[in-house]
Amino acid sequence: MDIFLFCFLASVLATSQAATTPHQIHLLRPQSGSSGHHVHGISCLSWRLAVEVDNIRDWDLVPAACENYVGHYMLGHQYRKDCNAAMYVALQYAKSLKLTGDGKDIWVFDIDETTLSNLPYYARPENGFGAKEYNSTSFNEWIEEGKAPPVPAVLKLYQKLLSLGFKTVIISGTSEKYRNVRISNLKLAGYHTWEKLILKPTSESSTTSLVYKSAIRKELVEAGYRIIGNVGDQWSDLLGTDTGNRTFKVPDPMYYIS
Amino acid sequence: MDIFLFCFLASVLATSQAATTPHQIHLLRPQSGSSGHHVHGISCLSWRLAVEVDNIRDWDLVPAACENYVGHYMLGHQYRKDCNAAMYVALQYAKSLKLTGDGKDIWVFDIDETTLSNLPYYARPENGFGAKEYNSTSFNEWIEEGKAPPVPAVLKLYQKLLSLGFKTVIISGTSEKYRNVRISNLKLAGYHTWEKLILKPTSESSTTSLVYKSAIRKELVEAGYRIIGNVGDQWSDLLGTDTGNRTFKVPDPMYYIS
Repeated sequence: MDIFLFCFLASVLATSQAATTPHQIHLLRPQSGSSGHHVHGISCLSWRLAVEVDNIRDWDLVPAACENYVGHYMLGHQYRKDCNAAMYVALQYAKSLKLTGDGKDIWVFDIDETTLSNLPYYARPENGFGAKEYNSTSFNEWIEEGKAPPVPAVLKLYQKLLSLGFKTVIISGTSEKYRNVRISNLKLAGYHTWEKLILKPTSESSTTSLVYKSAIRKELVEAGYRIIGNVGDQWSDLLGTDTGNRTFKVPDPMYYIS
Repeated sequence: MDIFLFCFLASVLATSQAATTPHQIHLLRPQSGSSGHHVHGISCLSWRLAVEVDNIRDWDLVPAACENYVGHYMLGHQYRKDCNAAMYVALQYAKSLKLTGDGKDIWVFDIDETTLSNLPYYARPENGFGAKEYNSTSFNEWIEEGKAPPVPAVLKLYQKLLSLGFKTVIISGTSEKYRNVRISNLKLAGYHTWEKLILKPTSESSTTSLVYKSAIRKELVEAGYRIIGNVGDQWSDLLGTDTGNRTFKVPDPMYYIS
């Protein structure tokens, strides 16, 4: 057995036993078993980095060989540490700024895998942390439950930004028809206020998230808002036009949205 | 001792003893000692991810607490695996394309930490893998030696792209005055041909690399070239305008160029 693999497992198991945090996202246990860990000669660790830096694009599923690796990452400490680090950097940046105080300094947030976590859904065996075929029916049922927990580090940043005087705008590719349940889910998770919550019109013709979100941000800028920061788990949240003065990528090795 | 830290060291030591690869870049040995590994409550692993996804920008030095971590990463197997994965993905993309055959399909490469590696320089104790103050005098002396080895995975991609029929254009922020030695270094490292090698005019007023490289790429596009791919270790190689149809980020946790 590869020493790195052994150590990785030992580390995950050790930390999972020690963890007693309150959020549902943390109570999920790592799956046992870790066969594979390589795909096409690429280690799953390298695959994840390549996904995070946008080297791998338009991918459909987590490679089967990396299902357990991604599960361990998402349920272990490293995902939370990586989220914490990203949001720490964002907060340091926010604190370094002097706001105008006219209420036009906004921070843009995505929803899925950013403000809210669908990890309880993706951790189900039939979803395999993104390694199993996407099932829109069961995913929509999960959304309709309205019980997605927050990504803790993002909630913490969100609350601190509000206290610093920023306005927040939440932009999601979720359909408008889920507006009520998304609002109740966001509030349940600890997000109590926002300047705007922009969901996708049900009439919206099929377009990429990158084009859709760029258009929304353009409207915000034309309405006089200044996008000071932009937080999302997908590069399609962070690239395109009017991306904001700074962007912050939240880790997400489970799926890709173009 | 943290189990992850212990395991990381055990893994690095085990792999460094087993490695018998021919390039100078691989013969360097990991430094002993690994105090720290955290900075501002961020683990060095999370710091590196935040750097790779461009969450942390305009940073001056590798945090002192992460010097040994970065050294182990750069000299161990993971850096090479991460480079291999990035270039594997690039090659798969290249192979999926049908070239026009008019000689205008180009692939852009950066030099430092992309085609050539300065790791032998940065591994010197006085440079501490980017954790010690940058010394332009000693760095320029190193460049003048012309002995930088290739980044093996990038050299392999480069050669395969040529055999697929792509032209290559190398764009670097290195001053024109080093043209001769950079050419001899590139050839020594295994890069024998290119469509253009574009270095920075000595008269160039101080501008960011992002602006400089965007302007160069714009000229290429205006001259009729199609930038099919773009490979660099800095986001300033890959963002801006005319970035190319696809970009590929080579890992580099040692320094930041805006």
